[in-house]
Amino acid sequence: MGTVCESDKYLLNRHTENHFTAGEIVRDVIIGVSDGLTVPFALAAGLSGANASSSIILTAGIAEVAAGAISMGLGGYLAAKSEADHYARELRREQEEIDTIPDSEAAEVAEILAEYGVEPHEYGPVVNALRKNPQAWLDFMMKFELRLEKPDPKRALQSAFTIAIAYVVGGSVPLLPYVFIRVAQKALVASVIVTILALLIFGFAKGYFTGNKPVWSALQTALIGVVASAAAFGMAKAVQS
Amino acid sequence: MGTVCESDKYLLNRHTENHFTAGEIVRDVIIGVSDGLTVPFALAAGLSGANASSSIILTAGIAEVAAGAISMGLGGYLAAKSEADHYARELRREQEEIDTIPDSEAAEVAEILAEYGVEPHEYGPVVNALRKNPQAWLDFMMKFELRLEKPDPKRALQSAFTIAIAYVVGGSVPLLPYVFIRVAQKALVASVIVTILALLIFGFAKGYFTGNKPVWSALQTALIGVVASAAAFGMAKAVQS
Repeated sequence: MGTVCESDKYLLNRHTENHFTAGEIVRDVIIGVSDGLTVPFALAAGLSGANASSSIILTAGIAEVAAGAISMGLGGYLAAKSEADHYARELRREQEEIDTIPDSEAAEVAEILAEYGVEPHEYGPVVNALRKNPQAWLDFMMKFELRLEKPDPKRALQSAFTIAIAYVVGGSVPLLPYVFIRVAQKALVASVIVTILALLIFGFAKGYFTGNKPVWSALQTALIGVVASAAAFGMAKAVQS
Repeated sequence: MGTVCESDKYLLNRHTENHFTAGEIVRDVIIGVSDGLTVPFALAAGLSGANASSSIILTAGIAEVAAGAISMGLGGYLAAKSEADHYARELRREQEEIDTIPDSEAAEVAEILAEYGVEPHEYGPVVNALRKNPQAWLDFMMKFELRLEKPDPKRALQSAFTIAIAYVVGGSVPLLPYVFIRVAQKALVASVIVTILALLIFGFAKGYFTGNKPVWSALQTALIGVVASAAAFGMAKAVQS
């Protein structure tokens, strides 16, 4: 392996960069809770506006949460699996190209570096170094030509469960009032209050974890909920008339 | 700018690589139609199982499609906007680091190349070439250290509308039978037939466009719809009892 020389190492240790990364699990929770808090809430609000009973609203809401959790969870799992298959296919193809047409692959490395104003006499040694190290060369092509990251096989399943559970948890918030309050109109009031509160709190946390202004994120998240339920309410009234 | 020398150019022209890219619009259509075909279908099936009338089913279905389209569309738009803000912040920070602590940044370039088995005497000229070209250096850090792509400002809005419209189109398929068929049980049969058909066709097309086996993709897509509606049906029966 190449060595980073002493003075470089010293500079790297002195200066640690603090680039923000949300984390894949946080991202999946955000995806699940965002939709979970919004769509079941809007559906329940819309049906309340159409004068449906608490019983129907709960039936529709819970059916929607079950369907949504499966669609997002199972759909996300299959999508992650197909990305893993795609990576494996591209890896095999690059390996084959390195084995059968190394000069063309070397030309691609040259082209990548040339884009950054590096002259042939400057990038030449780097290209040669890669040619002598086929494993490193393959990694380089996957990352810098194809821009693909090696997927973690556990992630597909983890991601599916995280999103599905987050959706169920999110969806429970607007629906719980309808479990306890018989009169749909009163349950609606309670649902609006707890859900808008939850949207604000969740939006704030989301902003905090993703490095965006938390207050602004809280307001945006609550706004989506309000717009979605207004649309659902309006459509439900329109269908009923 | 650096020049790719003549023999390299010749090799690049001779050998064109056909790496598959699904396209961002295709990806958004897939996202929208996948959920749109699945969740409204499952909701309608679930409510039919709970013996709701065609009128209630249509009300719930259309309200859910409106809410879902807004949640996905508006949510996707705000997510894309915050990614653009994140990119702008990281760009400013890298630029500042290049201006104020160039030696540390140069050490990072060295570290990136050293990972691929490139020795200091081999990557040295590349590092120096970048130091002489601050704009190229900044691009290099954004792409190879932070792995961030410059987002297209039009994409956020495009993406939002594409997903939202795709969701509405997808959701219309399982709901249309309930518009024309008064008796919910009969509408359910028609809805199941057209939706499973649509899921198979859409799944096939999705597989074709994403480079995955189309028949397998068709079956997986239909399976998600079946599992989601079975879950919705089961939950709806459970709530009604």
